[in-house]
Amino acid sequence: MTSTSSAPDGGGARDDGLRALLDGFSECGATPGGGVTRLCGSPADGRARDLFARSVREAGAELRTDAVGNQFGIFRLTGTPGAPLVMMGSHLDSQVRAGRFDGTLGVAAALRVGAALRAEARAGAAFAADFCAVNWTNEEGARFRPSLIGSGAYAGRHAAADALDIRDDDGISLGDALAGIGHRGGDPAPPLPACYLELHVEQGTVLEAAGAVIGLVARNWGAIKIDAAFCGEQAHTGPCPMDLRRDALLAAAYAIADVRTIAEGWPGRVHTSVGRILVAPNSANVVPARVELSVEIRSADDAILGAAGARADAALRDAAARARVDLAVIARTERPIRHLTESVRDLVALVAEEAGYPALSLDTVAGHDALSLLGRCPTGLVFVPSVGGIAHNEAEATTDHDVQAGFAVMLGAARRLCRAGGVPKAAMRGDAR
Amino acid sequence: MTSTSSAPDGGGARDDGLRALLDGFSECGATPGGGVTRLCGSPADGRARDLFARSVREAGAELRTDAVGNQFGIFRLTGTPGAPLVMMGSHLDSQVRAGRFDGTLGVAAALRVGAALRAEARAGAAFAADFCAVNWTNEEGARFRPSLIGSGAYAGRHAAADALDIRDDDGISLGDALAGIGHRGGDPAPPLPACYLELHVEQGTVLEAAGAVIGLVARNWGAIKIDAAFCGEQAHTGPCPMDLRRDALLAAAYAIADVRTIAEGWPGRVHTSVGRILVAPNSANVVPARVELSVEIRSADDAILGAAGARADAALRDAAARARVDLAVIARTERPIRHLTESVRDLVALVAEEAGYPALSLDTVAGHDALSLLGRCPTGLVFVPSVGGIAHNEAEATTDHDVQAGFAVMLGAARRLCRAGGVPKAAMRGDAR
Repeated sequence: MTSTSSAPDGGGARDDGLRALLDGFSECGATPGGGVTRLCGSPADGRARDLFARSVREAGAELRTDAVGNQFGIFRLTGTPGAPLVMMGSHLDSQVRAGRFDGTLGVAAALRVGAALRAEARAGAAFAADFCAVNWTNEEGARFRPSLIGSGAYAGRHAAADALDIRDDDGISLGDALAGIGHRGGDPAPPLPACYLELHVEQGTVLEAAGAVIGLVARNWGAIKIDAAFCGEQAHTGPCPMDLRRDALLAAAYAIADVRTIAEGWPGRVHTSVGRILVAPNSANVVPARVELSVEIRSADDAILGAAGARADAALRDAAARARVDLAVIARTERPIRHLTESVRDLVALVAEEAGYPALSLDTVAGHDALSLLGRCPTGLVFVPSVGGIAHNEAEATTDHDVQAGFAVMLGAARRLCRAGGVPKAAMRGDAR
Repeated sequence: MTSTSSAPDGGGARDDGLRALLDGFSECGATPGGGVTRLCGSPADGRARDLFARSVREAGAELRTDAVGNQFGIFRLTGTPGAPLVMMGSHLDSQVRAGRFDGTLGVAAALRVGAALRAEARAGAAFAADFCAVNWTNEEGARFRPSLIGSGAYAGRHAAADALDIRDDDGISLGDALAGIGHRGGDPAPPLPACYLELHVEQGTVLEAAGAVIGLVARNWGAIKIDAAFCGEQAHTGPCPMDLRRDALLAAAYAIADVRTIAEGWPGRVHTSVGRILVAPNSANVVPARVELSVEIRSADDAILGAAGARADAALRDAAARARVDLAVIARTERPIRHLTESVRDLVALVAEEAGYPALSLDTVAGHDALSLLGRCPTGLVFVPSVGGIAHNEAEATTDHDVQAGFAVMLGAARRLCRAGGVPKAAMRGDAR
């Protein structure tokens, strides 16, 4: 059933089916530029979800789709009802004109790990935990905001009903979008796993610069995200005197420029951005009445993050005052700096070492579904290199060698975990084979 | 057929049907805030056009809809084939959440003038010109850009085929939008008129400040309009190092702020704005790859306009350089400062004086359909006050008194013109009654 075999380098497993599965996902929402546009709840997302479901069924596993559309493929390895679960996955949704591997690699690898372990179980291998591959809904936050909606709902960070009611910029709810593609489920989600592991592309250049293949995420940067609206007054751009104008887009321009300068206060230690802006009425000859924008501040240092966030708050206020418009803060969230689970890191480091790819410890600046699980169960996040660090871009790429290396490490870790009932410390004591 | 009667003040005509017609148009695309959203080619525009057509037919006039959707109501007053034409009108399309009178007043007044003159002709009055009421397609430039598309096509400033191929931000062509609401016509447009007159709300505060009711536009401000695109590189707002980012929205922010400062170089004599911006991919966690924006520079002084325009060009280049993105100028148009036809102004001044509303000479900062006709035939533009100068805003208003005063002056001028074969100088020598 699986074509897993020993790889020539490092003794890890090479899986030809993984490449085929990745190619299959890449066809869903493929762009002329070689990337994908697979917004959550879109027809392209629906086709990718169909492929996930088909892969689960073909591997003889059980498919469940929960209320917010998270897809779970449960691979029974133990035959014991209520056995602990080892969970692995990521997301299939993407940004507009994004890369093929972002999220998709983690989902595809999880599906192939599940298939491999189930084949081993059928061949007589003994396991003490079942395995679950997962596709989390709306990780990106590109269409529905915020990000991490599916994994956050699963981890109890927000209610499913609230998540389903989130609307895109056209007013369509997540629930309706999922129903529209036939993937709004009603199955009970599996219980929290004994251990959660996620494979993802790095989206940075740390691994490439160090010549490393496997990255072990030690901590994630904290982030402050602010959604704010400037409210001015609609007027004719011709006759309306300049000193009477209350131009919401002018305020936004001041804010965007000032938010950029915040990063210069802590070079390399603070990342700032405004990536999204909604302008009304957005007509060449009308002074904009309302502008909504999304500000992000990221840092690996809590004190710096707090100070930079305060500067962003001040920048928004100052921009409103300068343009004589009103400021409304719609949402302000702080994601603290957190460390991934040490025992899981130790296990992955051991497996990577065994596979011939000594793991490099690094940070993640971006958020990932693993961070939703962190604190709910032992959680690990593993990176493979992004060529040139390119991310959220059609040119994003990871070499086939690195894809296979990542898969080998994930399979090795999952095998040990499933043998050890999902307990990382116990898994370290187990045999590699 | 018409309810025109002598008004108590100034001896002008008061028309109760005008208010009813204005109310009818206001229902098409009415907003909760008391304004209208009637974008060109929308269903609301279609309903307003239906009302225009019904009004023409009920007055016994001939309806023609040309290739770009301009609606003409031809009121035969002479019985002479090929008689000269006196044309009056404006536009029924609107900005988003705009006022009820902008454009609509001029169209409704023209329809009622036509009905009144036709009733007079039926009662035995002798005329030497026929009358035409017109609704020009897409004056606003809100949905399809640029503005003044219908009147520009009629005046031969661009080809109808090119106009029909203009697309909105969703890629829908003007031709398809008009066909979708059943108002893409095939009738021959009437020949150029002997004289064109337009009634419009001022959208400024000059009349109100002077306590005047009738404004006679002497000249229009020149305008430089630039559509430009900043092209950066899509990246993840998290891991991508700040110094590697090529953020198109940051460039736009620099440009918007700098364009605002240009106006400060010539206080009160230069108006600048950026009212429209399109961001791709427009996601909170993606560095924007492409931003398109629309810059306007307006002035009543040619030398100042040129200098301010050059500063805007430089501001765009500087912004691109600072944000390390590329700049592409998509379109750059210059509308020169021009004077409305003196003989038409003299005629309207005489009629206004007779009606008891001495006309105040002023500028128009905004463009109007009359400016498309200017240079093709004797052309006049008449303003009535906007309460508080509010424009392109649901709160835009003109009092019923001022609406009736404007109508009285337009009817008086049209009557004189139609008696005199459409020749303004001859119309001044004619009798008022």
